[in-house]
Amino acid sequence: MKNLMNANKVINLGKIIEAQRQFVRERDWEQFHTPKNLAMALAGESGELLELFQWLSPEQSKHVADDPKRAEMLRHEMADIFFYLARLADHFEIDLEAAVWEKMERNAQRYPAELSRGKATKYTEL
Amino acid sequence: MKNLMNANKVINLGKIIEAQRQFVRERDWEQFHTPKNLAMALAGESGELLELFQWLSPEQSKHVADDPKRAEMLRHEMADIFFYLARLADHFEIDLEAAVWEKMERNAQRYPAELSRGKATKYTEL
Amino acid sequence: MKNLMNANKVINLGKIIEAQRQFVRERDWEQFHTPKNLAMALAGESGELLELFQWLSPEQSKHVADDPKRAEMLRHEMADIFFYLARLADHFEIDLEAAVWEKMERNAQRYPAELSRGKATKYTEL
Amino acid sequence: MKNLMNANKVINLGKIIEAQRQFVRERDWEQFHTPKNLAMALAGESGELLELFQWLSPEQSKHVADDPKRAEMLRHEMADIFFYLARLADHFEIDLEAAVWEKMERNAQRYPAELSRGKATKYTEL
Repeated sequence: MKNLMNANKVINLGKIIEAQRQFVRERDWEQFHTPKNLAMALAGESGELLELFQWLSPEQSKHVADDPKRAEMLRHEMADIFFYLARLADHFEIDLEAAVWEKMERNAQRYPAELSRGKATKYTEL
Repeated sequence: MKNLMNANKVINLGKIIEAQRQFVRERDWEQFHTPKNLAMALAGESGELLELFQWLSPEQSKHVADDPKRAEMLRHEMADIFFYLARLADHFEIDLEAAVWEKMERNAQRYPAELSRGKATKYTEL
Repeated sequence: MKNLMNANKVINLGKIIEAQRQFVRERDWEQFHTPKNLAMALAGESGELLELFQWLSPEQSKHVADDPKRAEMLRHEMADIFFYLARLADHFEIDLEAAVWEKMERNAQRYPAELSRGKATKYTEL
Repeated sequence: MKNLMNANKVINLGKIIEAQRQFVRERDWEQFHTPKNLAMALAGESGELLELFQWLSPEQSKHVADDPKRAEMLRHEMADIFFYLARLADHFEIDLEAAVWEKMERNAQRYPAELSRGKATKYTEL
């Protein structure tokens, strides 16, 4: 795990969402961006993310970004996933960060450190 | 499209990533969190997101969060997707926001407003 | 629902699996075809299938094969999904047809006709 | 690779499709089974398949069916994927087996044995 990522790093979600709204409005794409379709598009992009990793060994997967072309593909797939996640958050007025903390709290309860240490067992089977 | 989302809204990515690192370290889960596995987990969660919408009409999908139980499921699936996206960004030291702006720039070129207005045609077929 | 599909129609799974084994052996690809990787590849292909439908209305989706190019894409995505499903069945010696009947039996119990008529409610919430 | 799978093994696709039609008709579910929704459901099931493998090493993934409970889950996820694939084939009157042979032919051209031996490189980069 690296440490270059600053603890004060933020994502300007509000600005991204404003830019998305304008992008979509200029193209008259609101009609396509129903939550159902956004969820499909997000899943489609996550399928493309999978394709970058599918034939690699776990070890090789750690170095997929060593190749600049692969690194760009990776960055763009991740951007696409974030794009649709932000569109969904906008539609449903979901506070994405609050949701993340809420879910991490839930996960901390589901996976007590002493019970789940070194094990990938699902909480329902712990 | 609603307007409650503030333009100054940010996601504290740095803090989330720090909390993730600690959560994973306390459980000795680094061994499971290879990029290959994170991509699989993200795709698995996006499959669960799909399941919330799969039998709904486009119109019904807009109101899936009207039911509090569904709203929580939605929030948690979106949180899970963001969780794995942040883990991948951490591993590869990818600036997620920069990637989003870069990809939106690319999309603006691929989908000129005048050519793509009101059409969901893929850029390769425009 | 059409009726052109003959009730005696079979898929020659044994022959497909033999051809797959030869195809993979000739390319020395056994090393890549672990079940983990096959599951990823299958999910990647199902993401590509999604992309054919993601911006279409439910009604439009019924006619996606009217366009010969789309029809071919559809056929090939479905073939890819079947390909990986057969590879997994081969690896685990799973009788795919027996599994289908077993699961339909289970579904018949989970979704009694009188309780689930006209409703897409999940069995856990019926 | 095992050899228990008989070369004459068939899947009775016609009978499965007839049973599906009846199952769906008895529950008045035709309204939900648009191709768009079937593709989503298939992708959702392939996400569940992923979850069985996501934290396993490639080697461990080969033995996931050693545990009877996991083996059943695997069989049922594969059955679900086949179920939706068959529904799509029925809707579009696609000959699934013909599609598989057609795609394998295409793949044989895209991946000449001598060029792709021992390499997982995508055909567009060979």
